Amino acid sequence: MRLIAARWVVPVSAPPIADGAVAVDGGGRIAWVGPRADAPAGDVEELGDAILLPGLVNAHTHLELTTMRGLLEDADFFAWIRTLTRARAEVLTDDDLRDAARLGVLEGLAAGVTTYADTSASGAPLDALLECGARGIVYQEVFGPDAAQRDDAMRGLRERVAALRARATPLVRVGVSPHAVYSVHEELLLDACAFALGAGLPVAMHVSESAAEIAFLREGTGPFADFLRGRGIAVGRRAHSPVHLLAELGIAATARPLLIHGVRFDDSDVQLAAHYDCPVAHCPASNAKLGHGVAPLRALLDAGVRVGLGTDSVASNNRLDLLDEARTAVLQQRGALARADALSAAEAVALATIGGARALGLDAEVGTLEVGKAADLAAWRLDGPRGVGADDPAAALAFALAGRPAAHVEVAGRVLVRDGGPPHPDAAAILARGDAAARGVSDWRRAAGGGR
Amino acid sequence: MRLIAARWVVPVSAPPIADGAVAVDGGGRIAWVGPRADAPAGDVEELGDAILLPGLVNAHTHLELTTMRGLLEDADFFAWIRTLTRARAEVLTDDDLRDAARLGVLEGLAAGVTTYADTSASGAPLDALLECGARGIVYQEVFGPDAAQRDDAMRGLRERVAALRARATPLVRVGVSPHAVYSVHEELLLDACAFALGAGLPVAMHVSESAAEIAFLREGTGPFADFLRGRGIAVGRRAHSPVHLLAELGIAATARPLLIHGVRFDDSDVQLAAHYDCPVAHCPASNAKLGHGVAPLRALLDAGVRVGLGTDSVASNNRLDLLDEARTAVLQQRGALARADALSAAEAVALATIGGARALGLDAEVGTLEVGKAADLAAWRLDGPRGVGADDPAAALAFALAGRPAAHVEVAGRVLVRDGGPPHPDAAAILARGDAAARGVSDWRRAAGGGR
Repeated sequence: MRLIAARWVVPVSAPPIADGAVAVDGGGRIAWVGPRADAPAGDVEELGDAILLPGLVNAHTHLELTTMRGLLEDADFFAWIRTLTRARAEVLTDDDLRDAARLGVLEGLAAGVTTYADTSASGAPLDALLECGARGIVYQEVFGPDAAQRDDAMRGLRERVAALRARATPLVRVGVSPHAVYSVHEELLLDACAFALGAGLPVAMHVSESAAEIAFLREGTGPFADFLRGRGIAVGRRAHSPVHLLAELGIAATARPLLIHGVRFDDSDVQLAAHYDCPVAHCPASNAKLGHGVAPLRALLDAGVRVGLGTDSVASNNRLDLLDEARTAVLQQRGALARADALSAAEAVALATIGGARALGLDAEVGTLEVGKAADLAAWRLDGPRGVGADDPAAALAFALAGRPAAHVEVAGRVLVRDGGPPHPDAAAILARGDAAARGVSDWRRAAGGGR
Repeated sequence: MRLIAARWVVPVSAPPIADGAVAVDGGGRIAWVGPRADAPAGDVEELGDAILLPGLVNAHTHLELTTMRGLLEDADFFAWIRTLTRARAEVLTDDDLRDAARLGVLEGLAAGVTTYADTSASGAPLDALLECGARGIVYQEVFGPDAAQRDDAMRGLRERVAALRARATPLVRVGVSPHAVYSVHEELLLDACAFALGAGLPVAMHVSESAAEIAFLREGTGPFADFLRGRGIAVGRRAHSPVHLLAELGIAATARPLLIHGVRFDDSDVQLAAHYDCPVAHCPASNAKLGHGVAPLRALLDAGVRVGLGTDSVASNNRLDLLDEARTAVLQQRGALARADALSAAEAVALATIGGARALGLDAEVGTLEVGKAADLAAWRLDGPRGVGADDPAAALAFALAGRPAAHVEVAGRVLVRDGGPPHPDAAAILARGDAAARGVSDWRRAAGGGR
C-alpha cells in the first residue's frame, strides 16, 4: 500500500481535508482517503505543502494539432478551419501527427491532466496516450458534407475504428465523432451514429461553436454554405440549431453525443441538452479566443446538464492546461453575468474533475477521490508567494495556482510526474521532434502565402 | 556595455526582432536594440530560447494587501470591502503591511513586473519597492466620507505625503489617491486634488468599479448609501457617474486622475475620459472575479484613451501577474464582443508595457525598448511544450507563456531576476513572514465569525 500525503487533499466528492492522505493499493485503486493522522500503514510519499486532488479530465482536445500553436492567430473562423484542414492534408505527415499528439500528452500531463477526450482524424492520439500511460477516449472523426461521400466515409470510419479498437485498452477507449453539421452530411451523420450505437461506442460532435455554423444550419447562408455550394453541394435550411437537428434526427435521444462547445446555445438548446441528457464539453478559452463568445455555462449547470471542461487544441487556445481552463470559466461567467456567484472556485474544480468524468461517462472510474476508483491523481505545490493564503484550497487551485505545472501526477496508480519532473523518459526527444514539426508547418504557411 | 541576447526581442515600439539583442550602458539605459548580428561589442548575456521585452507595468496594485489572498472568496462587494477595511484597522500591524508589500513586489518581479502603480493607505509599498529595486508610483490614499473629517483627513494626507516624499527617489515616486466617491466627501476630493496639483503629484482614483458605486452616486441608494446614512452622513444624488462628477468638479480637466477600473463606464464616460485625457487602469481579472463585469476596453482604445493593465490586489485577483492580465484582457474582450479582432495579442502586450507607461506618464522612461529609455527588461523562456510554435512572439507571450514566471528581470539596468531565480536575496525570509501574516489575518477572520 502506498500513501500519498499533502497539506490539503481535495476529494471533490467531500470537503477538503487538511493534512490529508490517499492510500493506493497494488492494483492502482484508491483504498482510503482521510486525515493523515488516521491513515492506514504504508509507504508514505510526502508531497508536503501541496494540494492533492483527482487527476484533471480534459473533455475536448485535438492532440494531433499540438504543433500548430500560434500558427493561425490572425484568421477568422472560416479561414482558420480551412488553413488547418489544408495543413492537415498538405503538410502534416503521419509522423508529424504522432509527434504532435505525444507533445500534447506531455503538455497535458505536466498540467495535471490524466484523462483526455480527443477527437482525431488520424488516430495518432490513441498511441500517444497508450505510450505515455494516460487515460482517454479517442473519438475517430468522420467528415463528408457531400451525400455522395457517404459510403466511402463510412467504409473509412469502420476501418479506422477497427484499427483503433485493436489497440484500445481499458485505459484508452475508442469513440466516434461526426465532425460538425457543416462538414458531415445528414445521412452520414445518421449512419455514423447508428454504427457507434451498434458497436457500443460513445459519440462526440462539435456543435454551436460559431455564428457561421448557426447561419449555415438555420438559413443555409454564410461562409460554410458558400464553400459547399462552390463545390456543388446542395445547402438549404435544415434546423434551428445543431442540437435541434440532433433531436429531430433521433440522435440526441439514442447516441446522446458529447456536445462540444455549445457557445451559441440559446435557451431551447440548453433545455434539449438537459432533456436528452446530452453532456457538454465547455471550452471557455478557445471560445473566447476565436471570438465565438461566452457559452451559457451557468444556465447549463442550472438545467442539470453534465458539463466538463476542455482546452480544445493549441491551434485555438494555445495551451493544454485544464486548471487554467477552470479559472477562465469562472472569470468568464462572472464577467459575462456580472455576478460574483455565477461560478464558484469549488464548482470550477468540480467541473475540471468529476464534471468531465460524468460528461464522458467515466465517473465510476475517475473524477473524485473515493475508495474503489482508479488512483488518477494530480497535485500542485503551494510554493512561492502565490501559495501564501491557501486557506481555501479550491480558490487556491482555481485562482492562484491555475496555469502552474503539477508537481505530482499519476494514472491508475502509476506515477507519471514526480517532483515536477518530465512526464515521460523521452520528454526531451518528443519535444525536439514536436518543435521540428511545428517549424515545418510554420514554414509551409509562410510559403503558402498566408503570411503570419 | 552589457548585451542581452535572445531568440526574440520585442521592442513593442517596433516589430519583433528574431535573434535580437539589447545593449545596456553603465547608467542603466538602453544604448542599442537590433539584430544580434549587428550588435555593438560588449559582455553578452545569452538568454537563448527566450522572448525579451520591456519590463511590464502594473497600473494598479495594493501591495500592502498581499497577505489577504483567498481570504474573501465568498463575500459580495460591500461585505468584501468592509471586511478588508476592518482587517486593515483591527488586525494588520505596520509590520504585517510591510511584509505584505514586500511579498507583493517579490511576486510581481517574479512575473516580470518592473513598474508598480500602487494605491496605499500605509505607505509601506514605497519602502518595499525601494528595498527590492523596483520602479513605481505610490499613491497615498485618503479616506473621509463625512464633511466633518475634511480637515483631519487633509492634515493626515499632507503629513503622510511629506513622509513619503522624503524617502522617494527618481525610481519610486509619490502620488495622491482619493479612494473613491463613496469613501471620500466631495469637498475632501477637491482639497486632495488641489493639494496634489499644487505639489505636482499625480492623482489616481477608483471609479465605476461596482453597480453599488453607481447607485450611490446616481440615486443615493444601495449598500454604500445605507452604510453612510447609518453613520449619520447625508447622502443624495450627486452625478450620473464618477467621471461625470470629476468633470463637473473640474478635476478631470486639471488633475487628470488615473481612473482605476471603469468597468461600469457607459459611452459618455468613455467620451469624457478621452476628452479630458484621463488615463484608465484596466483590471480585467479583478473586475470579472468580483462579478463587476467587463470594462469597455475596446471602446476606450478606439476613443484614444490611454489604458494600462492592473492586477489589483491579491484579495480580488488572486495573483500579481501582468502577462496573465494581458491574456485575460484578450479573452474577455473577444468573449464579450464575440469578435476575434476585439483585441490582438500584440495590442495586449502593448497595454502591459507602453500602455501602462503612458497611463502613468512614465513613457519617456519605460514601456518600450528604445535607445535612451531605462533598461527595464523582462524575458520569458520558451521552455517545454508551451514554447513550441512561437512564430509569433506576441501570441506566445499573451497566450502560451502568460502566467509563467519570468526568467530574467532588470530595472534600470540592475538585474533582479537571473535564470528564473528569486528576485531578492532575502526572498525566503520575506515569504515566511508573509505566510505568517496571512495565517494571522485568516485566523482573525475565522475568529471574527466570518467563516472562510
